[in-house]
Amino acid sequence: MKVLVINCGSSSLKYQLIDSETEEVLAKGLCERIGIDGALTHQPAGKDKIKSEPAMPDHKTAIGIVLEQLTDKENGVLESLDEIGAVGHRIVHGGEKFTKSCIITDEVIKEVEECSVFAPLHNPAGLIGVRACQELMPNLPMVAVFDTAFHQTMPEKAYLYGIPRKYYDEDGIRRYGFHGTSHQFVSTEAAKMLGKEIEDLKIIVCHLGNGASVTAVQGGKSVDTSMGLTPLEGLIMGTRSGDLDPAIIEFIANKENKTASEVVNILNKESGVYGLSGVSSDFRDIKAAKAEGNKAAGAALDAFVYRVVKYIGAYAAAMNGVDAIAFTAGVGENDDATRAQICSYLGYLGAKIDPEKNNVHGEEAVISSDDSKVTLLCIPTNEELMIARDTVALVK
Amino acid sequence: MKVLVINCGSSSLKYQLIDSETEEVLAKGLCERIGIDGALTHQPAGKDKIKSEPAMPDHKTAIGIVLEQLTDKENGVLESLDEIGAVGHRIVHGGEKFTKSCIITDEVIKEVEECSVFAPLHNPAGLIGVRACQELMPNLPMVAVFDTAFHQTMPEKAYLYGIPRKYYDEDGIRRYGFHGTSHQFVSTEAAKMLGKEIEDLKIIVCHLGNGASVTAVQGGKSVDTSMGLTPLEGLIMGTRSGDLDPAIIEFIANKENKTASEVVNILNKESGVYGLSGVSSDFRDIKAAKAEGNKAAGAALDAFVYRVVKYIGAYAAAMNGVDAIAFTAGVGENDDATRAQICSYLGYLGAKIDPEKNNVHGEEAVISSDDSKVTLLCIPTNEELMIARDTVALVK
Repeated sequence: MKVLVINCGSSSLKYQLIDSETEEVLAKGLCERIGIDGALTHQPAGKDKIKSEPAMPDHKTAIGIVLEQLTDKENGVLESLDEIGAVGHRIVHGGEKFTKSCIITDEVIKEVEECSVFAPLHNPAGLIGVRACQELMPNLPMVAVFDTAFHQTMPEKAYLYGIPRKYYDEDGIRRYGFHGTSHQFVSTEAAKMLGKEIEDLKIIVCHLGNGASVTAVQGGKSVDTSMGLTPLEGLIMGTRSGDLDPAIIEFIANKENKTASEVVNILNKESGVYGLSGVSSDFRDIKAAKAEGNKAAGAALDAFVYRVVKYIGAYAAAMNGVDAIAFTAGVGENDDATRAQICSYLGYLGAKIDPEKNNVHGEEAVISSDDSKVTLLCIPTNEELMIARDTVALVK
Repeated sequence: MKVLVINCGSSSLKYQLIDSETEEVLAKGLCERIGIDGALTHQPAGKDKIKSEPAMPDHKTAIGIVLEQLTDKENGVLESLDEIGAVGHRIVHGGEKFTKSCIITDEVIKEVEECSVFAPLHNPAGLIGVRACQELMPNLPMVAVFDTAFHQTMPEKAYLYGIPRKYYDEDGIRRYGFHGTSHQFVSTEAAKMLGKEIEDLKIIVCHLGNGASVTAVQGGKSVDTSMGLTPLEGLIMGTRSGDLDPAIIEFIANKENKTASEVVNILNKESGVYGLSGVSSDFRDIKAAKAEGNKAAGAALDAFVYRVVKYIGAYAAAMNGVDAIAFTAGVGENDDATRAQICSYLGYLGAKIDPEKNNVHGEEAVISSDDSKVTLLCIPTNEELMIARDTVALVK
């Protein structure tokens, strides 16, 4: 089956057309500046990227343009839209309602709307994509795949915050976790690479990209993860602060006469390695600055690595051991120096990185030495493929 | 030398008179409701507590009453106040200015005032005690012992938050850590119990009381600690939340139309195991409720233990190993079941608790089995003795 995978943001839309039998990407692309002017990057498999600037006043128009591209005589990969068997949508926040992917119905849409309280930018954008696809392809089955669903197996001790219980009971404030599709995909791949049943394994997945999170996967289930109610908690990220003393929000709010929302906006958009380095949210830029002697850049990278190390240690304790640690996403897949720096702390677990094997970028590899007690892995994530797999499984 | 140790709160004052040669407590007591009406509990060594309700309109009056008690013909322990050689004061926040205890001068008082921005309740109270003692005993040397000083050895990667760098450079927002006097005392005792030089050891100290924190002590120096800019961060405590997604403050502020300060007040005073259980901030009450089938009480205790476990794991990674884990303060010293529950996660470190040895309360003991790779310890903390030791060392 050919599955169209849609990942819809408030003013952007990423898509991939995937052949579920071969798991090949037939075409992929990106719509940007939706509602502003519009910019399209479309890439059929094995061909160059094609850039254009069609007007995109809304998401429905953008998806219409994507469908035209997919069936275009010159750059298309489909004879007809009838070849698409289903559409898989990434939805950020599924709350406690969605513990797995599901066929999109009116009821599902209503429940996703209710979850928007914790993802006020992301969930409405996801639903705009769903509705636009429903209008343009009314007879196609659609599936919602949630960033939070994989983490719904967390035990209470991991998802409860130390705040008055009513905030959980009445308002649903708890740890939800994100990047679930990636953590599930990578932990599944890790078990395959180890040649073992995932039920028998304790795996720590480090998804290190511009957004970043660590998950403890025990027996194939997420038992803890570093992101929380929102994707702000946990690691120091590209522009997000991650963990901090909650009193810092009070201090900044009072000093700068800001509301809590305004401070949290700084923590989401002006913080992380960007805020610490003053250079960029891109690790390559920060590393270049460090190489030129920028001490703040070096401090930002060290703080990033150190926070990852502490989460790995915390989750090894949470699971009373760890069999494998997998690195994924932009930094995790490609930055061998950062992987080596992280693993340099882990000798106490019997983890040994192999410098030669670690010289790998963007491909699946065991990067630990043969005598390492913990298998260290580099595994490219593939959230779109995971969405396509879930979609096919549900519509077949 | 006889040293008077003063720990001054905004409306209370704890004191101990310690003989520095024998390290015996000659008398101790507590003034409460200062500025309201006044209540005194005084206890000479080996005798019963004496309770009275003298008027205490201010701290100077309270300290005057304490000095009368110490030289009282019936219940006193001193012939004359001249026998007191020095006064040691607990000061909560020493910022980056104070890396160790120091003789109190006008300059020191000024600098402690400057640190009050991060401890607006505690530091002014500490200084009120200092000034009252200076007026009543103008010729006595006084020493300030800071809760934060021991942690000033933390490396940048541990004390920097992932926020714009200017907040550290210009405003001093960073991790300071607290309970430093306790963590230093307990780690020093731990090294003695192990019969090793502290320079060669990696120790994790779990100070588990109504306030609670975990510290990684490497080579005798604090290299990381769970409390942060303020004592709110880290573990789930009696009434404090500890770590949470910073976005939760925004959510509660907007939902309940509160300022950031009002939300942080909830996090400090209505949260922790008290807020989670709805029962009490006292672990004994919560355990009793759990025993009677209160599920929220059980969940609060499990969440508390789990958070401690994650910090132990994180600090084992931060130090690339751990030689000893020490439990101290109310819960840590006395609650063998909680110690056992925490250690049940730590088999992966080769840590084995001995159930019989662990049947110990409020006294120094090794509680791990002989073949444990990590030595587990119960060590009563003694902040007053540490303050007395520092005081004598500086005034001799």
